[in-house]
Amino acid sequence: MTALEAKSRAQTLAFAPFAFQATVALRDLGILAAIGRAGPAGLDRRAIAAETGVSEYGVSVLLDFGADLGLVARTQDRFALDDVGYFVLHDEMTTVNMDFTRDVCYHALGALTESIRNGQPEGLSALGEWPTIYEGLTHLPEPALSSWYRFDHFYSDRAYDELLPLVFDGPVRHVLDIGGNTGRWSLKCLQHDPDVTVTIVDLPAQLDAARRNIEEAGFGGRVDYYAADLLDPTRQLPGGTDVLWMSQFLDCFSEAEVTSILNRAAHAMDARARLYIVELFPDRQVFDAARFSLDATSLYFTCVANGTSRMYHSDRFRELVNAAGLTIERTIDNVGEGHTLLCCARA
Amino acid sequence: MTALEAKSRAQTLAFAPFAFQATVALRDLGILAAIGRAGPAGLDRRAIAAETGVSEYGVSVLLDFGADLGLVARTQDRFALDDVGYFVLHDEMTTVNMDFTRDVCYHALGALTESIRNGQPEGLSALGEWPTIYEGLTHLPEPALSSWYRFDHFYSDRAYDELLPLVFDGPVRHVLDIGGNTGRWSLKCLQHDPDVTVTIVDLPAQLDAARRNIEEAGFGGRVDYYAADLLDPTRQLPGGTDVLWMSQFLDCFSEAEVTSILNRAAHAMDARARLYIVELFPDRQVFDAARFSLDATSLYFTCVANGTSRMYHSDRFRELVNAAGLTIERTIDNVGEGHTLLCCARA
Repeated sequence: MTALEAKSRAQTLAFAPFAFQATVALRDLGILAAIGRAGPAGLDRRAIAAETGVSEYGVSVLLDFGADLGLVARTQDRFALDDVGYFVLHDEMTTVNMDFTRDVCYHALGALTESIRNGQPEGLSALGEWPTIYEGLTHLPEPALSSWYRFDHFYSDRAYDELLPLVFDGPVRHVLDIGGNTGRWSLKCLQHDPDVTVTIVDLPAQLDAARRNIEEAGFGGRVDYYAADLLDPTRQLPGGTDVLWMSQFLDCFSEAEVTSILNRAAHAMDARARLYIVELFPDRQVFDAARFSLDATSLYFTCVANGTSRMYHSDRFRELVNAAGLTIERTIDNVGEGHTLLCCARA
Repeated sequence: MTALEAKSRAQTLAFAPFAFQATVALRDLGILAAIGRAGPAGLDRRAIAAETGVSEYGVSVLLDFGADLGLVARTQDRFALDDVGYFVLHDEMTTVNMDFTRDVCYHALGALTESIRNGQPEGLSALGEWPTIYEGLTHLPEPALSSWYRFDHFYSDRAYDELLPLVFDGPVRHVLDIGGNTGRWSLKCLQHDPDVTVTIVDLPAQLDAARRNIEEAGFGGRVDYYAADLLDPTRQLPGGTDVLWMSQFLDCFSEAEVTSILNRAAHAMDARARLYIVELFPDRQVFDAARFSLDATSLYFTCVANGTSRMYHSDRFRELVNAAGLTIERTIDNVGEGHTLLCCARA
């Protein structure tokens, strides 16, 4: 990298919030869509203003910057959709990420430095008054609530269908779904195998939501609910299960808490039981953009969620698993949108 | 650009506020400085935590993402300062831009879309309750106040020393400093030429600040003050001057207001008078990063300053100058940090 390129990238960082909000505005005001409909010939400012109801001033300031960002391409006085704009307009992952940043994280990120200084999610107060997001999750104001769940589910949904045959590759009698949240994985298991039974472990509010979803789907007879705050180190997990499941769960805890929870999982396991851990590890991604997105998401945990957890890198995470008396038998990368499945047994 | 690159850049935009705040945190918590002092060998997380007093958790989440951003380079478990980080740490322009974004614009930008919908600076309420920033400028809370002035002065200071000989290339008797703000350009003129006299035109609060600075410097005897809100289209400018001066002034007004002000300037000019306009035009920059920074700055006007003005592109700006009955005799680009000087006469 030349000094000029490095200085340019420093300015890109210095004005990055402008780039984000201009992109959001171009999308939310319908300007990218209007330009997209016009095809390669593009539209001039006046036509875009007429079609979207946005002032010519607003169209101009946004599109001049949007051209710098690669969202639109200018030819004389006309603007056409450019490659980056195409993904902002049409790609679901981009939409989900952008809405999550806009609705859940944007203002909270202003407290990132203080969150790190204090070890607390100081940005969470932008959404409500809770000690961590887990107490507030079902009470988040809109549009934060919808954007949070769409972000969470977008990534897990794609992984679950690929994970089912990996977990059910032999007979499974009972699944302990630890941190089962709204019950999506449990439902997948119940639909996949007509004989399997499930116990969901989570906080009471999450269990209520899971119970509603499972009874609505008609699977109430095969599910138990186990209310537990696993932050309490004396709270044990039920034994006698053959599959323990933790999907996008341990990233919600600090290293010390991860070790404590894994210790209790190991304690609940017999020699035949297997613990499946699903995580998105930044350091096991094929694409740089995926690594970037996950390392960014860590900072959501820092300043919004709880101030202490993160998207772990796999090298450090393996140390925590081993320190809990577990051994990793299998590692399967690139499931769904870059998930990794760890299959663990008692050491 | 391949589809993969475009999709990657869309994710970079979707998480851009994370990139900004992580960069600010790495700088403000002293992590970049500690790494910079260690030289090419770098430091590991534990040493950085010990030196900065930041938790190992905080150091880790920030540096993992900082490596993705090119701020730091990782070699096994050690981090050294990378090229982009060098500019964030040591380059004054980057510091000034980043502080302006952090302190003046960050939260306000969350109201960009609404500002464009309403034609009002809806983000300004994050700083105080004024109709536009011009009523609030001298009352801004810290650190916004200092960061605003450092941003404004950083760019003008570099231009002023180069502009003096261009304006004083012949005898100048009197300068009408329109939008004189805190009096910096007037002071430059008074210091440069022992015979020149100056009239500063601005709002009363700005004139008070200018008067303090000019009297403190001992130049009170050569300066008049002319209080005027030029948004009032009936407010004329005083005539009989040989140089009229508008530096980083017209970007504070809408197109209709620019035309109205220039009309009144033309009306106040005789055939020998010259109007000098200094602006930063995004489309006349040598470097892409300068264009990007200026197109971003336009959005500060949209959502913080007044909702209607911008950093004009030069093609459109020339049309406004000509429509006001003025002709551009000379255009000098690349003065200071990318300023353009337009020398105008009555048509």
